[in-house]
Amino acid sequence: MDIALLAHEQFPDRAKTALGVLRYGDQTVRAVIDREHAGDRVADHVPDVQDAPIVASMADVPDIDALVIGIAPIGGGFEASWRPDVRAAIERDCDVIAGLHYFLADDEEFAALAAEHDAQLRDLRRPPEDLTVADGTAGNVDADVVLTVGTDCSSGKMTASYELRDAAREQGIDAAVVPTGQTGVLIEGWGIVVDRVIADFAAGAVERLVEQAADEHDLLIVEGQGALGHPAYSGVTTSILHGAQPDALVMCHVAGRTAVHGYEETAIPPVDEYADLYERVAAPVRESAVVAGMVNTQSLREDAAERAIEAYADDLGVPATDPVRFGVDDVLEALR
Amino acid sequence: MDIALLAHEQFPDRAKTALGVLRYGDQTVRAVIDREHAGDRVADHVPDVQDAPIVASMADVPDIDALVIGIAPIGGGFEASWRPDVRAAIERDCDVIAGLHYFLADDEEFAALAAEHDAQLRDLRRPPEDLTVADGTAGNVDADVVLTVGTDCSSGKMTASYELRDAAREQGIDAAVVPTGQTGVLIEGWGIVVDRVIADFAAGAVERLVEQAADEHDLLIVEGQGALGHPAYSGVTTSILHGAQPDALVMCHVAGRTAVHGYEETAIPPVDEYADLYERVAAPVRESAVVAGMVNTQSLREDAAERAIEAYADDLGVPATDPVRFGVDDVLEALR
Repeated sequence: MDIALLAHEQFPDRAKTALGVLRYGDQTVRAVIDREHAGDRVADHVPDVQDAPIVASMADVPDIDALVIGIAPIGGGFEASWRPDVRAAIERDCDVIAGLHYFLADDEEFAALAAEHDAQLRDLRRPPEDLTVADGTAGNVDADVVLTVGTDCSSGKMTASYELRDAAREQGIDAAVVPTGQTGVLIEGWGIVVDRVIADFAAGAVERLVEQAADEHDLLIVEGQGALGHPAYSGVTTSILHGAQPDALVMCHVAGRTAVHGYEETAIPPVDEYADLYERVAAPVRESAVVAGMVNTQSLREDAAERAIEAYADDLGVPATDPVRFGVDDVLEALR
Repeated sequence: MDIALLAHEQFPDRAKTALGVLRYGDQTVRAVIDREHAGDRVADHVPDVQDAPIVASMADVPDIDALVIGIAPIGGGFEASWRPDVRAAIERDCDVIAGLHYFLADDEEFAALAAEHDAQLRDLRRPPEDLTVADGTAGNVDADVVLTVGTDCSSGKMTASYELRDAAREQGIDAAVVPTGQTGVLIEGWGIVVDRVIADFAAGAVERLVEQAADEHDLLIVEGQGALGHPAYSGVTTSILHGAQPDALVMCHVAGRTAVHGYEETAIPPVDEYADLYERVAAPVRESAVVAGMVNTQSLREDAAERAIEAYADDLGVPATDPVRFGVDDVLEALR
């Protein structure tokens, strides 16, 4: 499928969905739309993902099957300045795929235009209709279940999940990511965006995903969301922790980050305390230990990155790595 | 307002909403509908709440303004066997008030019938349309904020909240309950049923309630939901803990209960560990301590009840009581 990724003014650092698709998706990205970086190429900003031109608007995008909204602002709203590009895509008979809380299909203008042009509006965050409360049974599956957790939002949980999957597959293990967020659902073509589910059903949604995936794979890497000490998203984090009933946890952290992104008055606890907190909260439902650590060292030079990873591993007492920079072979052993 | 409470086959022990209204609501309950106990009176089962006859169906209910669904099954569904009573109520031009996940107003038969009879279908669990993520600001309010938490669902959090409110008011403190569940919302006439909110917005919903109530009252008692170690509902619990940013916690427990209700394979941790867990999870967002304990000793004789309360207080290292049996004056001091 040929797509364009809308990421106005946020590419690459704040365009998590766009980057995830560029790195792990099997779609062909024909263009990234970002009026601030128009004229550049993806490779000018991010070296190790598929390359594509960056353009100012849909008018400069070649033939595509779908426009994908590649940014996920806090709150999940739709920004008015994206409207002309979405409109232009529909008018070119392209589908539009979004993972926002705001559903494109419920937008009267887009819905009418899409009907006229036979374009699909796919809202990945729209939950299934038949969800219910968790039975507390995910721990009974035959597959090994690993959950990526974090010290903050956007701390590399999805990246860690995919790098672990790929490394496991290279070793011949039948591994799969269980997607719980809009990017994962977009990459996989299945899953549930758990933060959009009715709060009472969030653990039940994760349980369903784990039990489905366990029928087909031997190692499941459940993509975590949020963080246990996050002022807004901790409920989703806890629901995934208890809904998935993982055998092991992999804790992700951004090197040098000391406060919660967007909530700067809220400090991130020391990482050893944080790992302990995850284990303690997991325990009443299922004993689970942090067995590996992942650090995003993007902002550091190589020697500083190595020191940061070593310090993180020491603090946690488990192997650690930067999955993008140094691969995950060393920590994969810890999951077995 | 004159009402009847539907509680088929579940009155009194599993009819939490019905009991809450009988105990704390200012509605006049003209009848409880429970086909299993028809012919009894409420006072035959529960001595210390307003009395009413128990009848088999709407046919035996005197003139009322509204039928209230007084039971909240796990999963929040609507049971087919309640349909004749709801239909009969609407045909008598009564409103129907429910706190289910299943919305009566979305039921085609009920909606059509209600339109015909000019009856209102009020779904208390339907969330406001304009919720969003928490800003992490509830801790800044001027009011003192106390949150009731529990070692399980149905462990007395709502009861504790109302008993604390009433005792505080008797001492001249302007206290209010911040309702987060269907019964509290029904009693208060405002609030948000937090478990029905989009998971990402659950903490934001609680934050909004606290900030609203803080403008009008000096002491807020936020009604907690679920439990931190509950396999299905822990996400809602965590969202309330971080959304409300309470100054103090009051931990509720059912004497003798050792496993999570409905999840018997999940043990309830020792109460001192449980209190510690609440404090540790609260801490990254706001330091908060368990300052008092509440025990439901309904199943025990008086001397055993006193021993159970004493043991609970010893384990927690804070004052404790059974709020219904012995009042809350002793623990109220601990909140100041």
